[in-house]
Amino acid sequence: MKNVAFIGLGIMGEPMALNLLKAKFALTIVGGHAKKAVKALSKRKNVTVVGTAREAAERASVIVTCLPDTPDVEEVVLGAGGLLEGAKRGTVIVDHSTISPVAAQEIAAKAKKKGVAFLDAPVSGGQNGAIAGTLSIMIGGDAKAVKKAMPALKAMGKKIVHVGKSGAGQFTKCANQIVCAVTWQAIGEGMTLGAKAGVNPARMLEAISAGAARCWALEVRTPEVLKGNFKPGFMAKLQHKDLNIALATGKAVDVPLPVTSIVNEYYRALIAAGRGDMDTSALVTLQEDLSRAKIRGK
Amino acid sequence: MKNVAFIGLGIMGEPMALNLLKAKFALTIVGGHAKKAVKALSKRKNVTVVGTAREAAERASVIVTCLPDTPDVEEVVLGAGGLLEGAKRGTVIVDHSTISPVAAQEIAAKAKKKGVAFLDAPVSGGQNGAIAGTLSIMIGGDAKAVKKAMPALKAMGKKIVHVGKSGAGQFTKCANQIVCAVTWQAIGEGMTLGAKAGVNPARMLEAISAGAARCWALEVRTPEVLKGNFKPGFMAKLQHKDLNIALATGKAVDVPLPVTSIVNEYYRALIAAGRGDMDTSALVTLQEDLSRAKIRGK
Repeated sequence: MKNVAFIGLGIMGEPMALNLLKAKFALTIVGGHAKKAVKALSKRKNVTVVGTAREAAERASVIVTCLPDTPDVEEVVLGAGGLLEGAKRGTVIVDHSTISPVAAQEIAAKAKKKGVAFLDAPVSGGQNGAIAGTLSIMIGGDAKAVKKAMPALKAMGKKIVHVGKSGAGQFTKCANQIVCAVTWQAIGEGMTLGAKAGVNPARMLEAISAGAARCWALEVRTPEVLKGNFKPGFMAKLQHKDLNIALATGKAVDVPLPVTSIVNEYYRALIAAGRGDMDTSALVTLQEDLSRAKIRGK
Repeated sequence: MKNVAFIGLGIMGEPMALNLLKAKFALTIVGGHAKKAVKALSKRKNVTVVGTAREAAERASVIVTCLPDTPDVEEVVLGAGGLLEGAKRGTVIVDHSTISPVAAQEIAAKAKKKGVAFLDAPVSGGQNGAIAGTLSIMIGGDAKAVKKAMPALKAMGKKIVHVGKSGAGQFTKCANQIVCAVTWQAIGEGMTLGAKAGVNPARMLEAISAGAARCWALEVRTPEVLKGNFKPGFMAKLQHKDLNIALATGKAVDVPLPVTSIVNEYYRALIAAGRGDMDTSALVTLQEDLSRAKIRGK
């Protein structure tokens, strides 16, 4: 049985870890964080709980991380008691977090000096995809390391693309998040327009889901929006964090992102309105407020 | 054999008319416009060419129109030698054009006075959908008239939704076009960001097409964009026209459309750059210009 260390048991990480168990991996997890998830997992077969990331790294040659933001990954990988202190040469760290592409390249360079491969491997597909094991995984880094991690990746994802060298996964994730976030603003504008004119939102959704506007957001999440269900999924405040990364990356490579900028301002307004813990689709509620029209509850 | 009159044999109308022929409808078409399409169709069995819309209306109880803009539909339906001059009571006009929802309601009211049903029935799915007979059709108007037109609609579309009363089809089309147009700006921003950072656009596309960014635009058209193929499809200048309708409708019902407005400004810039006859996806070329990065030709 292969041992995988898993750090970061949040709303994405926990179901991903469960899929590794289902695929007959033994797991080493770290206590002290995500206590509810650690408690639930520790009751399962083939799960070992240790005290630090360093100890987890000592026990596995493939390590999976799934953390909220760039500083979290830097601390867990590079910090005191962190993964690089415990990892043997040849170890592969697969980081599913969405973090700065430039930071990912820097972490990979530091890991390489210790003979450890750090793959940037952000995911898309939301909590549903994490539970179903159908995530899309976009990977940047060394091809041999990708091959070594592949059995674990296949337990968590469906579409696994080795996009390019270190950072390529995170650059691709920027593109992914831009499309996802901007789409919610578009759906908000389009559907409030119809709703205010008196069109039934459910029928409107049925019609536009089938043509050239067809997309994941309309198919998978908008039926929930119409019910007024904004349980994440993927939290609006994390989408805001991801867009901040995309905008900083745009500055770094001199690519203007005019519409992404505006949409991120709206995400900031959504958080300020106390809705940052809602699903990213809750962006449409701002457009409902602005237009005094409801697409929910009809 | 049922006779259908068909007015408007453009890049959408011609393949839609061919699908009606395939489904064993006899067609009456009008000479003088779309000469190439008229010439090609006139060589087929079960096609009659007449001189005016009025004469076409005299020969059919279901009339299909597929025209560029609001004034074209007003002229063909209400003008001298137009459909209402020739149509018998009980005739159904199915208008697949994308026009102002308010104008559609006004045309329907005038038609009703003559005992004729005017259905607003805009379509989505582009020329590919028109050729394959898989269009999405969103309909506003009288339920009995929709039922009468259904055999013809089924020959042209796959997802046929009677959204609501007169105008509802066009309001829904506004929502549809907003999502489609804004998505192209999002794809342009996201993919130029990755491309400028050195990521291979084809691999980036493969990765983001599979997760929460999944959409028709990425699946169906972006592979063509990467080849530099901007043959329409659906022309950018018509998308601009449709967004102008959406924005005017937003004013009419007091719904602010901030991102739609900006994206429409970019479509105007695209037309000014001489690219209005290209496919709507050509919006990404402006973002390529702005960011000095290419997502094409790699």
